[in-house]
Amino acid sequence: MTDIEAYMFKLGSQARAASREIGKATTAEKNDALLAIAEAIDCGRQQLLKANQLDLAAGGEKQLEPALLDRLELTGKRIDTMLNGLREVVALDDPVGEISDLNRRPSGIQVGRMRVPLGVIGIIYESRPNVTCEAASLCLKSGNATILRGGSEAIKSNKAIAECINVGLEEVGLNRQIIQIVDRTEREAVGKLITMAEYVDVIVPRGGKGLIERVSNEAKVPVIKHLDGNCHLYIDEKADLEKSVAVAVNAKTQRYGTCCTMESLLVAKGIATDVLPLLAVEYEKHGVELRGCEQTRNIIGNVIAATEEDWETEYLAPILSIKIVGDVVEAISHINEYGSQHTDSIMTEDDNRAQRFLREVDSSSVMVNTSTRFADGFEYGLGAEIGISTDKLHARGPVGLEGLTSQKFIVLGDGCIRQ
Amino acid sequence: MTDIEAYMFKLGSQARAASREIGKATTAEKNDALLAIAEAIDCGRQQLLKANQLDLAAGGEKQLEPALLDRLELTGKRIDTMLNGLREVVALDDPVGEISDLNRRPSGIQVGRMRVPLGVIGIIYESRPNVTCEAASLCLKSGNATILRGGSEAIKSNKAIAECINVGLEEVGLNRQIIQIVDRTEREAVGKLITMAEYVDVIVPRGGKGLIERVSNEAKVPVIKHLDGNCHLYIDEKADLEKSVAVAVNAKTQRYGTCCTMESLLVAKGIATDVLPLLAVEYEKHGVELRGCEQTRNIIGNVIAATEEDWETEYLAPILSIKIVGDVVEAISHINEYGSQHTDSIMTEDDNRAQRFLREVDSSSVMVNTSTRFADGFEYGLGAEIGISTDKLHARGPVGLEGLTSQKFIVLGDGCIRQ
Repeated sequence: MTDIEAYMFKLGSQARAASREIGKATTAEKNDALLAIAEAIDCGRQQLLKANQLDLAAGGEKQLEPALLDRLELTGKRIDTMLNGLREVVALDDPVGEISDLNRRPSGIQVGRMRVPLGVIGIIYESRPNVTCEAASLCLKSGNATILRGGSEAIKSNKAIAECINVGLEEVGLNRQIIQIVDRTEREAVGKLITMAEYVDVIVPRGGKGLIERVSNEAKVPVIKHLDGNCHLYIDEKADLEKSVAVAVNAKTQRYGTCCTMESLLVAKGIATDVLPLLAVEYEKHGVELRGCEQTRNIIGNVIAATEEDWETEYLAPILSIKIVGDVVEAISHINEYGSQHTDSIMTEDDNRAQRFLREVDSSSVMVNTSTRFADGFEYGLGAEIGISTDKLHARGPVGLEGLTSQKFIVLGDGCIRQ
Repeated sequence: MTDIEAYMFKLGSQARAASREIGKATTAEKNDALLAIAEAIDCGRQQLLKANQLDLAAGGEKQLEPALLDRLELTGKRIDTMLNGLREVVALDDPVGEISDLNRRPSGIQVGRMRVPLGVIGIIYESRPNVTCEAASLCLKSGNATILRGGSEAIKSNKAIAECINVGLEEVGLNRQIIQIVDRTEREAVGKLITMAEYVDVIVPRGGKGLIERVSNEAKVPVIKHLDGNCHLYIDEKADLEKSVAVAVNAKTQRYGTCCTMESLLVAKGIATDVLPLLAVEYEKHGVELRGCEQTRNIIGNVIAATEEDWETEYLAPILSIKIVGDVVEAISHINEYGSQHTDSIMTEDDNRAQRFLREVDSSSVMVNTSTRFADGFEYGLGAEIGISTDKLHARGPVGLEGLTSQKFIVLGDGCIRQ
């Protein structure tokens, strides 16, 4: 066994033991721990900022990109956001222990389900120190132990935050090992974390597509993952023109870099000459580059010819692909073929078409007359979210506390034996 | 691309296309298909038995074990059982399309969840031809397309059953490719099936532990798996003596070879001298070999000394390990350490201890005063089951139709845009 293997196994077995402890903690104990963590972070501001300065200096020497340095930076305001985040998690309902569907069977047994934590959650993320606190707080509230593995550029910041978290846990008499950080920067540590299924129940990677694909390909532990967000809006022939323009502009331009930004606009043939000219004006105002099919280019000017690749691309930029389709059936099949099963929306006043779209589009969020930008745990009322899943098993779409739990069967009898 | 790769990709892409069709079928259409399949099997009895005779003859020549030949054999009665199974699936509620938790958010959008099929399910099983029909019917009713890969010894029987299934699908105007069988026996076919994530959404392996471990280790597609069933019964100090004896005997002896048979009995120190002598008499009657800890051996005779390995073993045989523990806390920690997270039960009249056991035992079924033998989809009221999951994500315990679906978010608005 290599040194790093032994280190990871130790973290793992400690996490497994700690998961038994946090799994049976009461809601009050978990909330007290979250508040104590907030207190410890608040008191530790100077140490956090100092540790972060060291990471930033090292990052500067390594000539990291400005965007990366920006994400790495902790400021007083960002620490405040972390504290608010902790308090919001306190306010969330605790899903653990909830019993549902209890009913009596002909044999005399009562069968129901109880919501329980998953156990040990491994979080793998890039160099955003605030994720350390945010992910840990959601795992804690849902009764799970956590092993956190952040980007190596943020290692000193993450260790400082983890120290505050551990102080908070101890403050209320809980085990420090409920939340542990991997303080080794070797890549091998990740390799172990995602394969030691005896100690880790699920991995949540947070970051760019490259990270998530790497983790998913090599993992032996189940992964809750978020890949592309190639989201569509389809404007049906029976859509309201004014609403359609408002939603189509919002879905593209409200923010360009999010996973639920619309990347591809489908327009029914019968409404294209009405709606496209209105949209072209709006997109031009926002500086959005348009890439369209031939029919689109016949209706509005200043549109680059779209290639097959455009239909599959998540631009994360002020670029939009536009395609004219015959009807809702063609729209659904285009989305199921080229989309990424993330979030897709229809604009229509026709209820049958709306219902058909809702049922047949195979995406984690399917919407009617709504901007795709609403696909978000906060907007959905889940409270915080650990991520947005594009998987089909377990959790689809925004994943809140419930997604970090599962249900076991409970059976109550009075000496029942099977005949 | 090898020949077999090309073959599997073709099956996969056909299944993906067919999944869109069955995913939107109505309950009536699916039920009609199930009945048409039953009809086709009923009319095809002679062909089925003939095909099965060829498999049996080939198996005999290969000198397969008698137990395997028995599982491989189709009889008139087994065909009747298949037909009854199909009719039972018709009677089950269709989970697809069910909308839940719909509520309005402050932004004006309404958010809810809709239950939808998983898409394409791959079933890998050993040489029991009845699984072909049973698994296919559950996948069909839950709106999924299926690729079936049975043991090579049953290939002719499986092809004959699949032909009936396809005739049934065509009869009601559905695509034959909704249910496809892999009619190539090369091992490479399995390797492709479990890694072609673009075409297959989940794999359900059914069979022995060796098969399931092999599939899980190599899969890139999520697997709903069932590993060991090392199930415990704990008799608490406050248990009712008479009920405890009845349940402990039932849990061990009602059937020896099932995954929910008790393999290990834990007895509280304070009740051991009362209950163990009674149990020893019963187990002797049934010819159950006992392996116990030292304290057990001091109380009753004819007990072999248990080793560490015994605590971890799923015997699937008339053998039982017995351990005396201090109290419910020690029982819980023994179960969480040595158990297989399948099914564990407590005998106690003390509600606090029952509640503690229910919460803290980390198994897919946790029971109070009930024989572990009840851990079964039929007994739980799920109707048929595709298997019993020992995973923590998605589905834990017996997996019925609901476990073959997931929930997507649906969002309804009236031109809502995000601020």
